[in-house]
Parts: sequence; structure tokens; C-alpha cells
Amino acid sequence: MSSNCENECDPSHCSLIGDNCKLTYNESCVPLDIPEDILNELVDKAKDYALMHGACMRSKTAFDRDTLQFAPFFLLPSAFPKREFERVVKFQPIMNKLIHHVAQDYEFLKKCLKKYILGELGKEELLSKLPENNALEALCDGMIEAWKIYGNPKAVVLFVIEDVTYNICDQRFHEFEIRRQNPDVHVIRRNLTEISKRGKLTDDKRLIIDDKEVAVVYFRAGYEPAQYHTDVEWDARLLIERSLALKSPTISYHLAGTKKVQQELAMPGVLERYISEEESKLLSQLFTGLYSLDLHPEGDKAVEMAIEYPEKYVLKPQREGGGNNIYGEEIRTVLKRVQHSSEREAYILMDRIRPPILSNYVVRPHEPVKLIDVVSELGIFGVIIGTKDKIMVNKNAGHMLRTKMSTVNEGGVAAGQGGLDSVYLTD
Amino acid sequence: MSSNCENECDPSHCSLIGDNCKLTYNESCVPLDIPEDILNELVDKAKDYALMHGACMRSKTAFDRDTLQFAPFFLLPSAFPKREFERVVKFQPIMNKLIHHVAQDYEFLKKCLKKYILGELGKEELLSKLPENNALEALCDGMIEAWKIYGNPKAVVLFVIEDVTYNICDQRFHEFEIRRQNPDVHVIRRNLTEISKRGKLTDDKRLIIDDKEVAVVYFRAGYEPAQYHTDVEWDARLLIERSLALKSPTISYHLAGTKKVQQELAMPGVLERYISEEESKLLSQLFTGLYSLDLHPEGDKAVEMAIEYPEKYVLKPQREGGGNNIYGEEIRTVLKRVQHSSEREAYILMDRIRPPILSNYVVRPHEPVKLIDVVSELGIFGVIIGTKDKIMVNKNAGHMLRTKMSTVNEGGVAAGQGGLDSVYLTD
Repeated sequence: MSSNCENECDPSHCSLIGDNCKLTYNESCVPLDIPEDILNELVDKAKDYALMHGACMRSKTAFDRDTLQFAPFFLLPSAFPKREFERVVKFQPIMNKLIHHVAQDYEFLKKCLKKYILGELGKEELLSKLPENNALEALCDGMIEAWKIYGNPKAVVLFVIEDVTYNICDQRFHEFEIRRQNPDVHVIRRNLTEISKRGKLTDDKRLIIDDKEVAVVYFRAGYEPAQYHTDVEWDARLLIERSLALKSPTISYHLAGTKKVQQELAMPGVLERYISEEESKLLSQLFTGLYSLDLHPEGDKAVEMAIEYPEKYVLKPQREGGGNNIYGEEIRTVLKRVQHSSEREAYILMDRIRPPILSNYVVRPHEPVKLIDVVSELGIFGVIIGTKDKIMVNKNAGHMLRTKMSTVNEGGVAAGQGGLDSVYLTD
Repeated sequence: MSSNCENECDPSHCSLIGDNCKLTYNESCVPLDIPEDILNELVDKAKDYALMHGACMRSKTAFDRDTLQFAPFFLLPSAFPKREFERVVKFQPIMNKLIHHVAQDYEFLKKCLKKYILGELGKEELLSKLPENNALEALCDGMIEAWKIYGNPKAVVLFVIEDVTYNICDQRFHEFEIRRQNPDVHVIRRNLTEISKRGKLTDDKRLIIDDKEVAVVYFRAGYEPAQYHTDVEWDARLLIERSLALKSPTISYHLAGTKKVQQELAMPGVLERYISEEESKLLSQLFTGLYSLDLHPEGDKAVEMAIEYPEKYVLKPQREGGGNNIYGEEIRTVLKRVQHSSEREAYILMDRIRPPILSNYVVRPHEPVKLIDVVSELGIFGVIIGTKDKIMVNKNAGHMLRTKMSTVNEGGVAAGQGGLDSVYLTD
């Protein structure tokens, strides 16, 4: 937290508004001492900007559909190395392609997931392994392309929504943006229960709900087991999957996004089945930190590595969701216990990522602004549309930086422990 | 409320979002029967659109600076004759010019307002006669021009604000828009009490507050007596008026906007002192409904007219503010009583405007949507910057349509009885 940078930091010229921020951010140059009166003016202005531009949520403690509160955010943009940023942006369409081809590979998915598919886990547990597919979020023009591909100008885009929506702005922005880009496209919003009760398939597999034909289904819900209350909601999912409507995403994309599949893809020679050798080489740079602990020689090597240098790794149970990760000396203890049994396949080993810790001001509704140590996670969005044989659209679609306190494990913005942030590219 | 129009009304294609509304509005074609499920979807979408785009207010009943609620609005745009709309837009710069020259005419203002200036009314009562000058609200680029005219790139724009701001979005939009158009312009916000305590004039009359020189002062408060708590706030006003800073508006604009001045301007031959004969002829079309009741032959004529046809007029006490107007038979009674005394000068006679009554859905926070009879008021914004001898900028700056229940007198949106509306031009 020393401050020995050459560039002059003048916080009075800093603002989330406009792009004329002159601050230079790096680990040795963080404006930690904004005077209180300037800080208060900045925070007030930033809060109002967020409120007036839909960077908002509905309150979870006092639900009121007629008001919004701003979503937690960080006052100053966070440093991010330009070279790394550009690298991941460039890789995104390759990742799209990989996941697309993996999703089409029924045999591979079955092999990866056969334990679950064969019934060792229930539906709920399976769903709990389907991470939210953020890479498909920013896809308004993608949805319009889809919609066009479907070929019926009277058909609508169906947003599958939760029973109660807190993160309403993000959903509505997609809806309004689609409408802005192409006023012929109508969006309807239904939850899984409504779709099950009021949706049907025609004989030629067109999906109809409330007398409207559906061209595109965009899942904003259905990623969490809790959203499938009974078989009624599972029936809705099946109805959608069986229909001709384009799905964003299909169930096979959900499955291709599981940790187990990630782990199989990290094995040598697997990537090359789906993308070119050159592309595999590029992507494998992102995969270096993921090791299977299955009962094969690669797994044996990984176990030995982790027992020798536990501080370099995180041991994660296959089950998704925070709080169960194992660190440090405990990795050694656990691995020694399960080293020679199939029990070890219940875990995955990952390089322990130690992101740079920066300081930033966190701004939350109804809490005083606080200067805290933070770490960031960059997400690059992408759009891909295609069939098994043909990819029609494949492109980047923006990015999102989520930042969280350096000491908490889960950083989702909607989940409440993280906050919105913006990227400040550094050399 | 009959529905015999030739054009097909299809409310399912109507939306506040996008400009593809196909509805045709006129008195005999109002979509009164939107099915409940479509209405609910429309209302929900429109509420979210308002919330996410800053068409919002802070709650007056449960003040919370970290949340916003949508401002009351009308679901469907209101019919307005195109010819009339274009006429008032065209007249706006002429009106600007008139008020500008009137504001420079110290002798005329003194004559009009001498009763008050000579001390018959206190400061508070004087201020109560200064209507809010909406015509100067939409002036962001105007403010930047001003700012440029002032000539010091380090000087700031000062927004004079209330102690507690409910209508925060409208203010902040001006601030953000200024910043967007020209990132060199910094805006600061202070209330009159702060300006009085922390502001000062240099010997050469530059206005300084918190070590910042002020180029432009934009009054968002100071129009209501209640905002001047003590002499401290009056001192702030005096400080600003005496400074070199450009004021939006100056006190002379405030005075030029009073009813008494309007009434004097409606007298034959007065307009021609300030604008050309041709311009006077155009503007006087807007003035036909305003009659002085002062003790002169014109006043005598007006009194006789009103006694003969009271249903055509409204008799208004000079005091601003609703609820005191006199209608119908009571006009006859009052005027007969004061006909021959100077008491009648305390009133002004106006044509009774009977705006067309339309039906519309009013949408308010925490109230069910309601179909009601409404009337609308169109405001045309303008920007004028100049000195006594030279006008540097004079132009239109957009419009605003306020709509209210046909049965209430006061229709301000911020005041809570009206709602935001949009114009639908008709032939």
C-alpha cells in the first residue's frame, strides 16, 4: 500500500462519469487517501449515476417492484493488464467453438458424465453441477440473428424467468435492446411453471405458448435445482429441448460447462479433437491449472504433485458451490487418505490462483463506503449459433469485471458478496 | 368515449418502448379496453423502463437516497395537434427574446412591480409570485456555451439545490449531460445556506466557493420562499446576483416571469417595444386570453365582458398557487362588488381554457393502474444567453408534456398530482 508512483494522482478529477479519468492504477499507485468531502461527493454522484442508468437490483430484504436500489459497485476502476485482457478477448471465439463441438459430442458427454447419467446422482444434484453460463448473456444481436434463422417473423423470443426476479435490470436491458435493434421482435417472459402449464408442441415440433410461436428460448432461470419445484418444471424443460426453437443454451451446453467435462478437456490430446492444433495450443494456456485426480497415470502424477507442494493448489470437491474447498496442509492430509482409492475421483485439483490484491472503495446500498482489499474476475462474453455441422455466428460480445473482497470466496454480484467494477487497462 | 375510428387499434402492438406504436389517437379513438393480461404486461414493462432510465423520483413518504421509484406516468402517448405543436415550437425563440428584453428593462419592471418593490409585500410574498421558469430547464449545451463565454476553463458550473432533493434524476441528467458533452466542465452542487457560508466575491466580483471559481449558476432552488430560511439564504442570492457569474436565470428574469408583468405585456402596444411588429403579431396570438383589470378603459371593458359571459373566463387573484381561482357565477358576484374600486387590480382575468379531455392509463408507484379522464399541458423549453445589447444564443431546447386528471387543478409531476406523458402528433 505504498504510494511511490511517478504519475500524479488527483482524485478530484476522478469520476465514474465520463472517460477522462487520469488516474494511473497499479499495485504501487492506488489513491488511498481521497479527502472525505471529495469522496462523499464522488460516491453520491456515482450512486445516482448507477440508479439512473439501471445498474440496479430489486431489494431482497424489502421487495418492492416499483423501486430499485443500486447494485453494489466499486468506486474506482480496477487495474487489468492490457496484454492479458486482449489475449482472453482473442481466445473467446475459440472457446465458443470448443464448447460448441463438445456440446455436440454426445458420446463424449456421456462418457464424462456417465456416473451421473446412470443415476448415481439425482436430478437436483446434476443441476447443481451446471454453472451459470455467463458467456451467453450478452447476446441481444445474437438472439435477433437466431430469431431470423428460425424464419417466422411472427414468432417471439421467450425469456425463461424466475418466479421472483431480483436482477430485473439485466434481463430488461436485453429485452429493450432487442426491441431497439429490431422492433419486429417481440419478447415474452414466462417462468417454467407457466411454460409447463400453457406451453405445447405442435405435431411438427413448433413450441407454442399463449398462442404465440417461439423462435428463441433464452434461459434466465433453470440453472438452479430450486427453480424446478416439481416434475411440472422438468416437463417444461423437456418440452423446450424437444422443440424446434433455438435454445440459449441447449441442455448439451449446460452439460458441456460442467467441471467434470472441463477436467476431461484438460487431459492431453483432448482439445485437438474439437479445434485445430494451433487453437488447442492457444487455449491450453488457459487450462494449465486443472488436473484430474482419476485413477490413471496423469492422476497419480497430480496427486504426488499436490502432496509435495500443497500451497500451490486448491482441492475442490466435484460439487459446485463455495465453502467446501480445501487448502494448504489439509490437502496433504486428504490426499494421503484417498490416494489409492477411487474416492479421489470425487475431487479435482486446481492451481491456486493468487490474483493481485488491489484497494478499492466498495459502495453498497445502506452501508457506509469502505476502502477494502479486493480481487477481480474478468468475464468475456461471446455469442455462438450453429448446428452440429455449421457455425453461423461466433463472436465476442463484451466483458464484465466482478470484484470482491479479497477474503471472501463467492463473488457473484446478484448473490450479494461481490460488486460491479470496470476495467482499467495497464501496460 | 365512443370508438368509431377507421383505423384498427391493436393494443398488443403498443408499447412505450420503441417508436413503432401504430395506434391512432383522437377523441373518438381511444383504446379503452386493453385486455387485462396485456395491460399488466405493458404496465410492468413500462414501469421497468422508467426505473431503468431515470424517469424516477426519490420517495417522499419513505426517503431513501439509495433507491428510486418511478415518477408517475401515463401509459399511452397523448394526442396533440401537429399544427399547434409546430406553432408553439416556432414561437419559442420569440418568447425568449421578449422575456430577455423585458428583463433588461428596469424601468418597466419597476413600474409593473412597484407596489411590491415599494414594500407593500414582504420578500416571501414577492418570491411566491415568481413561477418556476421551466423554459430554462433544458439548457445543458446552453450552459456549456455560457461556461465558454465566461472564459476561465478552470471555473465550474454551480447548481443551486434544495436542502433535500426529491427530483434528483432531472438535476443529475443535466450534470451528466454537461459532462458527456464537455468533460472539461465540472459541476458542483450547493444549497443556498452553503453558498452563503462558504461563498465569497473577489474584488473584481468573481464568485468563489470552496476555492473554485464559478462561471455559471443554475438555479434548481430559490424559486420558493420556503427555501430562504433566514437572511443567510437571501445573502447568498444577493452574492450571486452581484457576481460576474452567468446566472440561469437572473433575478430580472424571475421578475419578468411574474403574472403582473404578463398582464402588462398583454396591453395593446406593449409587445412592440421589445420585439418586431411581425413577431408581436405572432406572439399576441398566445396572449389573447389575458386581461388586466386595472383602472383604465381596457380594464373597464374586461370587467364588463366578464360580468356578461362569466362562463368564458377564470378570475385569478394575483397571488400564485392553485385553489384560489374563481369560476362561473361567482365571477359576476365578485366583479360587481369590486367593479369601481382599485380592489379589482388584485385580480387578473383570463380566458377559461377548456382543453380536450382524453382517456389514459395513469401509472403510479404502489397504486393499481387506472383508466382516467385527463388533460395535458405542453411546455416548450428554450435557451437564451445575452446581454442588454447582444443575444448570443437563442433556440428551442425540446419539450415536455405534463398530463393530469381532468378534475384536478394542479398538475406538476414533482408536486405529485400529474404525470409524465409523451406527445402523439395528430393532423
